[in-house]
Amino acid sequence: MRVEFSKMHGLGNDFMVIDLVSQQVNLEPALIRGLANRNFGIGFDQLLLVEPPEQPDVDFKYRIFNADGSEVEQCGNGVRCFARFVHERGLTRKKLIRVSTKSGIVEPEINEQGWVRVNMGAPKFRPAEIPFIAAADAAVYQVEVGTGEVQLDVVNMGNPHAVIVVDDILKAPVETLGPLLEKHARFPERVNVGFMQVLSRHEVCLRVFERGTGETLACGTGACAAVVSGIRQGLLDPEVVVHLQGGDLTIAWRPNDVVWMTGPTATVFEGVIQLHD
Amino acid sequence: MRVEFSKMHGLGNDFMVIDLVSQQVNLEPALIRGLANRNFGIGFDQLLLVEPPEQPDVDFKYRIFNADGSEVEQCGNGVRCFARFVHERGLTRKKLIRVSTKSGIVEPEINEQGWVRVNMGAPKFRPAEIPFIAAADAAVYQVEVGTGEVQLDVVNMGNPHAVIVVDDILKAPVETLGPLLEKHARFPERVNVGFMQVLSRHEVCLRVFERGTGETLACGTGACAAVVSGIRQGLLDPEVVVHLQGGDLTIAWRPNDVVWMTGPTATVFEGVIQLHD
Repeated sequence: MRVEFSKMHGLGNDFMVIDLVSQQVNLEPALIRGLANRNFGIGFDQLLLVEPPEQPDVDFKYRIFNADGSEVEQCGNGVRCFARFVHERGLTRKKLIRVSTKSGIVEPEINEQGWVRVNMGAPKFRPAEIPFIAAADAAVYQVEVGTGEVQLDVVNMGNPHAVIVVDDILKAPVETLGPLLEKHARFPERVNVGFMQVLSRHEVCLRVFERGTGETLACGTGACAAVVSGIRQGLLDPEVVVHLQGGDLTIAWRPNDVVWMTGPTATVFEGVIQLHD
Repeated sequence: MRVEFSKMHGLGNDFMVIDLVSQQVNLEPALIRGLANRNFGIGFDQLLLVEPPEQPDVDFKYRIFNADGSEVEQCGNGVRCFARFVHERGLTRKKLIRVSTKSGIVEPEINEQGWVRVNMGAPKFRPAEIPFIAAADAAVYQVEVGTGEVQLDVVNMGNPHAVIVVDDILKAPVETLGPLLEKHARFPERVNVGFMQVLSRHEVCLRVFERGTGETLACGTGACAAVVSGIRQGLLDPEVVVHLQGGDLTIAWRPNDVVWMTGPTATVFEGVIQLHD
């Protein structure tokens, strides 16, 4: 079976993308794990499958699989690449695309430069919504870790985030504090931990220790959570550029509204692979 | 500039292979480093360039670059993939191919199954040829490492190898002894360290700590060195299957002759990438 695909990335978070509108491919978890292998296969963080719509009000269905073959709900960098892919492959001419995902309908909007803006939904802050164990709502919380205390904010962006403001992003204790907080008893479903240095009211640096993964090049929901937290604490204006290791995202939010994320996409190459039927 | 390439591997040692007989591409070290990046580029251990012959008695010239953009002399897994590539791309119909490399002429021979046999040259054993510091030639040497002594053999296969016979490959001290021996004062140009478990007179398991890299999935010259050492010590017959983490190689050697290595190749996919001129 001959399968065409694109290799893409959003801020270094990399994807194999397959058009299942024009092609039929049977992708078992074992096959996905093989394709994900960076030495023996193609290599990717996630596999993105673009499928025909299953409901009348959307343009596509889109599914995401991790390198271990498990299906996941959402990926901020992935949905941007999805939008670029359907344009490059001529599957649509629409700039604003409606796509159904495992976590609901998403509407990425692509511009001339291949940058994509995505509605990331409304953030949630109440401890039970994170989930985070706390006696009462607060702007920031003190959490005991090892021999000391750390001050953090909590935000749910579809997944749980803790945000810590630091003076120097290069010296942030990502490797030590990240794993301790990720599995801290006050986060029953564990947590992604963001370390943010505020450069100005519209520019921050961010490193994120991702739940179950460790530090990554770029975490889209982490960027949203950090900026929302900074705005709530009065440190940031409504539109902020976030410098991540893999590149920049622009995050915009006004209280009681949804979060908008704008970021780059890149198509690295187009490939053809022979799969055994 | 539109560039066609193949992604291949030999026992998990993976390559981007470019036909420069039919295409013209200007590959600067910075571009190679970008292509080698597994998130932002294509991802590979080495880049293989297939070029027209520069002398009348060979079929091709072939060059090898590491992921850091530096040119290297030889790669046992790479030359097998080279041979499969020139067949798949229709650049030759010969089974025995003569190719000039930075380290001289190599003659890989391809069979129907895509397995390739390569003359790996004659091994050298004298301490000065390794190089290894020793008072006199010996079959095996005692080397002081930390608080103990280790018994090893030394072989040069174009690059220096130390070979240690172990009882259990899974418990071999690759992570601890590998780095200590690699930089040991008695190996002035450092050394690749192989740990070999002898299963029978024609079957061994091997793990190799590669100089400057660490443990790898499969080291072709390491397999040659280990089998030659085992034959010299009277442990092995002249043809031996070597089980490496990435797969199997067959190594054949008779004293005073060259070493023959036979192993598999795989083409994972074919790709097209747009490079900026």
